Amino acid sequence: MPSYSAPVEDTLFLLNDVLGFERHSNLPGFEDATPDLVEAILREGAKFCEEILQPLNRTGDLEGCKRAEDGTVSTPIGFKDAYIAFCEAGWGSLSASADFGGQGLPHTLAVIMNEYLSSANMAFAMYPGLTAGAIAALTLHGTDEQKAKYLPNMIAGTWTGTMNLTEPHCGTDLGLIRTKAAPQADGSYRITGTKIFISAGDHDLSENVIHLVLARIEGAPEGTKGISLFVVPKRTIGEDGTPGDANGVSCGALEHKMGIHGNATCVMNYDEATGWLVGEENKGLRAMFTMMNEARLGVAVQGLAQSEVAYQNAVAYTKDRLQGRSLSGPKEPDKTADPIIVHPDVRRVLMGIRAFNEAARALVLWTALNGDISHRSEDDKARQAADDMMGLMTPVLKGVLTDTGFANTVNAQQMFGGHGYIAEWGMEQFVRDARIAMIYEGANGIQALDLVGRKLPAHGGRAVMGFFNEVGTFLQENAENAELTAFTGPLKNGLEDMQKATMWFMNNAMTKPDNAGAGSTDYMHLFGLVALGYMWARIARTVQGKLKEGAGDKEDWLKAKLTFGTFFMERLMPETAAHLARISTGADTMMALPAEAF
Amino acid sequence: MPSYSAPVEDTLFLLNDVLGFERHSNLPGFEDATPDLVEAILREGAKFCEEILQPLNRTGDLEGCKRAEDGTVSTPIGFKDAYIAFCEAGWGSLSASADFGGQGLPHTLAVIMNEYLSSANMAFAMYPGLTAGAIAALTLHGTDEQKAKYLPNMIAGTWTGTMNLTEPHCGTDLGLIRTKAAPQADGSYRITGTKIFISAGDHDLSENVIHLVLARIEGAPEGTKGISLFVVPKRTIGEDGTPGDANGVSCGALEHKMGIHGNATCVMNYDEATGWLVGEENKGLRAMFTMMNEARLGVAVQGLAQSEVAYQNAVAYTKDRLQGRSLSGPKEPDKTADPIIVHPDVRRVLMGIRAFNEAARALVLWTALNGDISHRSEDDKARQAADDMMGLMTPVLKGVLTDTGFANTVNAQQMFGGHGYIAEWGMEQFVRDARIAMIYEGANGIQALDLVGRKLPAHGGRAVMGFFNEVGTFLQENAENAELTAFTGPLKNGLEDMQKATMWFMNNAMTKPDNAGAGSTDYMHLFGLVALGYMWARIARTVQGKLKEGAGDKEDWLKAKLTFGTFFMERLMPETAAHLARISTGADTMMALPAEAF
Repeated sequence: MPSYSAPVEDTLFLLNDVLGFERHSNLPGFEDATPDLVEAILREGAKFCEEILQPLNRTGDLEGCKRAEDGTVSTPIGFKDAYIAFCEAGWGSLSASADFGGQGLPHTLAVIMNEYLSSANMAFAMYPGLTAGAIAALTLHGTDEQKAKYLPNMIAGTWTGTMNLTEPHCGTDLGLIRTKAAPQADGSYRITGTKIFISAGDHDLSENVIHLVLARIEGAPEGTKGISLFVVPKRTIGEDGTPGDANGVSCGALEHKMGIHGNATCVMNYDEATGWLVGEENKGLRAMFTMMNEARLGVAVQGLAQSEVAYQNAVAYTKDRLQGRSLSGPKEPDKTADPIIVHPDVRRVLMGIRAFNEAARALVLWTALNGDISHRSEDDKARQAADDMMGLMTPVLKGVLTDTGFANTVNAQQMFGGHGYIAEWGMEQFVRDARIAMIYEGANGIQALDLVGRKLPAHGGRAVMGFFNEVGTFLQENAENAELTAFTGPLKNGLEDMQKATMWFMNNAMTKPDNAGAGSTDYMHLFGLVALGYMWARIARTVQGKLKEGAGDKEDWLKAKLTFGTFFMERLMPETAAHLARISTGADTMMALPAEAF
Repeated sequence: MPSYSAPVEDTLFLLNDVLGFERHSNLPGFEDATPDLVEAILREGAKFCEEILQPLNRTGDLEGCKRAEDGTVSTPIGFKDAYIAFCEAGWGSLSASADFGGQGLPHTLAVIMNEYLSSANMAFAMYPGLTAGAIAALTLHGTDEQKAKYLPNMIAGTWTGTMNLTEPHCGTDLGLIRTKAAPQADGSYRITGTKIFISAGDHDLSENVIHLVLARIEGAPEGTKGISLFVVPKRTIGEDGTPGDANGVSCGALEHKMGIHGNATCVMNYDEATGWLVGEENKGLRAMFTMMNEARLGVAVQGLAQSEVAYQNAVAYTKDRLQGRSLSGPKEPDKTADPIIVHPDVRRVLMGIRAFNEAARALVLWTALNGDISHRSEDDKARQAADDMMGLMTPVLKGVLTDTGFANTVNAQQMFGGHGYIAEWGMEQFVRDARIAMIYEGANGIQALDLVGRKLPAHGGRAVMGFFNEVGTFLQENAENAELTAFTGPLKNGLEDMQKATMWFMNNAMTKPDNAGAGSTDYMHLFGLVALGYMWARIARTVQGKLKEGAGDKEDWLKAKLTFGTFFMERLMPETAAHLARISTGADTMMALPAEAF
């Protein structure tokens, strides 16, 4: 059976030492988030994830969700008790608005908890995760009355939320949505249509489910300009604020899927369900997009989370499994064989995952902090810069952390040999669960297009220039730092590759958009490597400083970070050149053939 | 529901036009394999795979194998009928020795059929696949009496075979085997022990199962030098040659695993089962190794096979799925949206898979032909050269075709968006099935070590020098061929990277073996790219020649190959530089940390 230990030390190091979380104590919500409180929260959260959620991960996968004849959906054994404990401890309300019963803490803390929750039990974490998305949508676009009606119970977790976008014939292209909304005399709408792939669509964890649904008001324009957002409770809310009668929405079927079996992925049937408009008529897509950065960051974190838990279990196995001898002579001659962690090829895999995870965590926290600044700072310039960075980094994080996170689960599974393929070891579940993160919340190809087609050119390239400036400044500041050249050298090369690629798009993609599409995924991964390499360089500089101060019993722990970081620079950064080479070939070859030739 | 169409045209083109199969008509078995016969066999085989086996792929996955209370194992509905049809058509005996009822055709044809079978239904194909391995072991190492006793029924398929190597505490390191063999007065042995992960270990397809079992004769030396090979029938064979009483071997449990649910992966319990020594005492591992090239080639083919069937289904979906518009303006303005194959990022994925598959198939066929030559040629030099190439290429094929084949199934699945994650579409099964090929028959890390540690240095590097010479000669011969520079240019760069990496090992790995281990997987993939690039260059030259002759209605089909090949050169070959960079960093960083630091 797999295990999990939340990386609290690593998180605190990144937060306090590398990213200077305390510097932001002037922001609303941050004043309460003292280092002591943050540490206490993370340690308590870690315990909950390790002790309550993780043991339900494999049983939840095995049992899955069930839909009864009458359409009601039940979650695996133990999920409901765990959810009650989750709500009672306030894990779902960390960063929610204090106006509606939330704790008002920095969103960054909720992002950290999301990593721990998703490592321990991704299928479970999705229930409150989807609720958080729905809370964000209502917070940003709901009326005061809607907020008062829904938010307190959603923040408390008594009610959960969902996002209903996809229909059988449309996912990426939401302009094709057919679900209809018929206006009623009382200002409500009758919603009719079928939505698919609705995570946490129905279940037995909460007394009500609040669906946010994209639909087309009768007579609205075709395409994306005729889509509106509605709130549709599973049970309508009475005058007293409590759930009453069933609304016309039900789970028609559960999807049979590759993983996340503990989460109920529903086909939702809307049959003249009563709904209320959220935000403006025909502006539903815009309302969705404003909350997408955070939702996508949440999915990125799932990629990291699965990579982390898979890594931890692979390390344990490779220390334990005795098989063969070290190439340089027996390391444990008194045993029948050496543990397989003596082999360089095993270490190559483990270090590759670890070197990715630590930098990915740093990048997540840095981006989450930017998110907090962008929402909470009173300094216009700081807010804009943070918003730029958050927007730019979101597709990179979503695409890279889920692509590489998935690949890492596969690599970790490989360390188990045949046992990795056997369900009881739990490794193949990490692979199956991690796989969805590359797909939902915008498939990774869409992330790459968002990056290259929208985020790069926005405001004349302001955001990416900001990134270049930041990394360039770091490199300049540390140009004379000889001890850091193992980091700054490769980072400089990577940055130059990225700048060349960016320039290539400017010169070749404006006139021929297919050139952007042809290089988009490579660019996303090239960007990811540079951003992760930048995180490693910052970590390394921080470690240097702490070692000079004298790190006491943390010295080995800190020095190991330099080694993992060096591995990243030596082994992962060289890929930037290959990405640049591919980007530079353009679209001609791939667009040359008619579809029939495939 | 997924579909499959065996790539017969592509196979025939490679066999006849690129590789000159007919040139070998002087070899035993080849004289009968005229182009007409080969085509007839492949077309008939394709039909069997498409119509009989493919429809059982998903149902077999859903139902899986079952073990009854009494220990008997049953395969999914339809498997037994399909197996009877398989045997009756002679698909299992194509290349088996005519002395024992086989058809004596080139093994290359069996390899081709294995691709089609594995694309259509990998779990099914493993039953005869394992039998073929057992046949090979008995053919090479059995006594005449053993051959007469077992081979006719195994070749006919009436009896199937298994390979029993792994035990709970040992897989890679077979020196740790504990299964015991106690000699009996009559020359037989009593075999006692537990074997795990035994594919096709027990089932209802055949009247007997012939187990080949590695065990340690009482008093044998410790480690790998004390392992012997035994044949242990499930039911002992009577004087009349028919199966009689149950032997002391039974399936203790079926493994619950990630994929290949239609194949019975068994824990096999040997409880004083009667077995007979195959080959020499204590030389069991050597006996296993002599048949390993072909078994590993078989697994490599599974990687290609899953990549191919996943590709075909992804292409069909991307032509059918209407979503969004082309970046360069609507392509099908009369429809609600364009098919997603208009998008460069979709084509990037599809072409990447296709460009890999075609070259991988060529490399498989080329290696299989070398295998045939090495076994059948009367020319000592030709035999040695072919054996060198077969041995050298085997770990490359096994490692690269299964690693990349798996990655390709993931990429193909991605084309389906959310539908790719849903079981009924069948794409996630390809991913789960393909995953095992990276693990079994020697995990891919072991393949890389075999390549770098054993195959490279063997005979003073004779085999790899042979490869360099062959590719170098091709490049020289085509140095003036201006139309081929899109192929020869990148191939030359790749070859140079590979030569540098090889040289790096010579200079750095002899004195410090960890440097070999640290670069082994990168070297394997670097080698794979160069070998596949070489195949593309040969394909391109052949296409050139045929286009000059005038290709009639095949012109577009041939020209498309040039485009797929160009894609390979532009987009996949640049990776050789990254591999070289990683190899050149050596082992220092990854060996720097104690195990506790992970």
